[in-house]
Amino acid sequence: MANVAVLGAGSWGTALSVVLADNYHDVRLWTHRKDQAQQINETHHNEKYLQEVSLPSNIVAYNDMEAALQDVTAVVVVVPTKAIREVCQQMKSVLSHKVTIIHATKGIDPDSLKRVSEMMEEELPDDIYEDIVVLSGPSHAEEVGLRQPTTVTVSSHTMKEAEIAQDLFINEHFRVYTNPDVVGVELGGALKNIIALGAGISDGLGYGDNAKSALITRGLAEIARLGTSMGANPLTFAGLTGVGDLIVTCTSQHSRNWRAGNMLGKGYDLHDVLEHMGMVVEGVRTTNAAYKLSQSQQIEMPITQGIEQLLFHGAAPKEVVDQLMTRGRRHEMEDLANILGDQYSS
Amino acid sequence: MANVAVLGAGSWGTALSVVLADNYHDVRLWTHRKDQAQQINETHHNEKYLQEVSLPSNIVAYNDMEAALQDVTAVVVVVPTKAIREVCQQMKSVLSHKVTIIHATKGIDPDSLKRVSEMMEEELPDDIYEDIVVLSGPSHAEEVGLRQPTTVTVSSHTMKEAEIAQDLFINEHFRVYTNPDVVGVELGGALKNIIALGAGISDGLGYGDNAKSALITRGLAEIARLGTSMGANPLTFAGLTGVGDLIVTCTSQHSRNWRAGNMLGKGYDLHDVLEHMGMVVEGVRTTNAAYKLSQSQQIEMPITQGIEQLLFHGAAPKEVVDQLMTRGRRHEMEDLANILGDQYSS
Repeated sequence: MANVAVLGAGSWGTALSVVLADNYHDVRLWTHRKDQAQQINETHHNEKYLQEVSLPSNIVAYNDMEAALQDVTAVVVVVPTKAIREVCQQMKSVLSHKVTIIHATKGIDPDSLKRVSEMMEEELPDDIYEDIVVLSGPSHAEEVGLRQPTTVTVSSHTMKEAEIAQDLFINEHFRVYTNPDVVGVELGGALKNIIALGAGISDGLGYGDNAKSALITRGLAEIARLGTSMGANPLTFAGLTGVGDLIVTCTSQHSRNWRAGNMLGKGYDLHDVLEHMGMVVEGVRTTNAAYKLSQSQQIEMPITQGIEQLLFHGAAPKEVVDQLMTRGRRHEMEDLANILGDQYSS
Repeated sequence: MANVAVLGAGSWGTALSVVLADNYHDVRLWTHRKDQAQQINETHHNEKYLQEVSLPSNIVAYNDMEAALQDVTAVVVVVPTKAIREVCQQMKSVLSHKVTIIHATKGIDPDSLKRVSEMMEEELPDDIYEDIVVLSGPSHAEEVGLRQPTTVTVSSHTMKEAEIAQDLFINEHFRVYTNPDVVGVELGGALKNIIALGAGISDGLGYGDNAKSALITRGLAEIARLGTSMGANPLTFAGLTGVGDLIVTCTSQHSRNWRAGNMLGKGYDLHDVLEHMGMVVEGVRTTNAAYKLSQSQQIEMPITQGIEQLLFHGAAPKEVVDQLMTRGRRHEMEDLANILGDQYSS
């Protein structure tokens, strides 16, 4: 069995540690908060996240990155997007041997407009890893922690690295598939948070399931449109990390992006929502990143644009959603054909 | 404004009547039950379905088909799949002028393996209509009756007929798009009920949202696989009548197919479930039809096959779902590539 470091002790990092521990690996769960590391080691619970899950004894929390990374063969990075570069800098300063690097962070950097794996490639020296692996898919941490059946995808340009990640994580409850389309897997996971905000806003306004599913359907089309323009395989958006993750994030109250949207729909302002959540809501920064990408790539993204207006420019939730529901088009295929650039519209 | 007959006073027929009435059409809501027609005209409520909705006074219920169809310019057929042929026979016997015919029934006939519009074409003489229009999409009747925002698709081989249907129904709350892919629109609406049974079974077994969204994602792939083999445009399955309707039916307790599946997952047997529901559960017959089609078309449909085994051959719900969750494949693209028959698997 392997020594594996998990960097980031939020709910997803904790849940992934449980999966690895169930597979008999020695897990070092690193957190930048000293008191959290202490608390986890004393109580074998992560009191702030996944309170209900008892952590197996082969999960040991660390606050010291150097100690956490000693003799590991794999590192799983699960910190918020905005902390990715800093954590990579720390890894670089203490890691001298080659490891498998996996990340499970869903976001896009609104400053550099880079995907998470691209930021990591920029920050990490070539000689400590072969190729970044992305782990993504429809997976509420709470359910994974409780060993509810879950399926995810791992993706890397180097199939061998993806298969190493697959072997580390796969077990009876946690099914892991490979997909060679890194761009599509990474973008699907990041961009669905925008649509989850939108779904929450629609629910918060008191609209029903009919409206929400129309919005999710259009959301899938606009995610796929941007993704394919950035080199993703359109088929990936029909899979676990596309429509699968979109469904789970938009229709479940476990989702923090949905919950943030729900509060926005009820009229709370962004500052109050983020304060109340007390967790990172990746969709907010991702909306801004995707909005900028849609401008530079000249891709039509009406939902992203509407939510950008709502989050950062004071647009009213009801106006934004009503505008999305009553757009002028009459032919559905105009929307759909844009996904693949085909000429189905009539 | 037009005289429009709606044949079938279940919840969907009643909701569509409300939309037409809101658009100032004179609506004749036909039901084969004399007492129901009387009750609707006396109380302006449909007590059995959509109790909470007051029916506008321009909806008049009929039990006499000949009277209902007199001077109508359009007929909307919303009866269960198994009643389609009989209702067409009745229409044929009293209808002598040409009308626009729209149907909003989601099923496949397990005997002839025909779609609803195909059955109607077989039963109706050519000279009373130009081309059948299919109306489908993510639309719980309860929400439509309450004027919650809803989007649907109308489809016909003759665009002019689809546009007539669009003009009849479209209003501020009820957005109507056209799509020329009749086969895809009709199959998406019918086949999603199988997946909704599966989603209900998973929930009934106590599995979570991660498992359900994986099942829905695979369901979309297998629906698209059968659909494209039958001549549908694969893009349609990414739209309102595909993924949109799938989401709304699989994740909402309004859905009777989900509710039936939920009871099956909890261990009730099919006979008890159908008795308890007291409404037609189209997914049961559609499962059998799709299973037969998958055999004749040699299309892999593991979810449909599993539910066929559960419904008609005594398979245990847990075995069926666990088998779907733990299939041997390791590469996601094997599943996805099958949708379009491409060679993405690695």
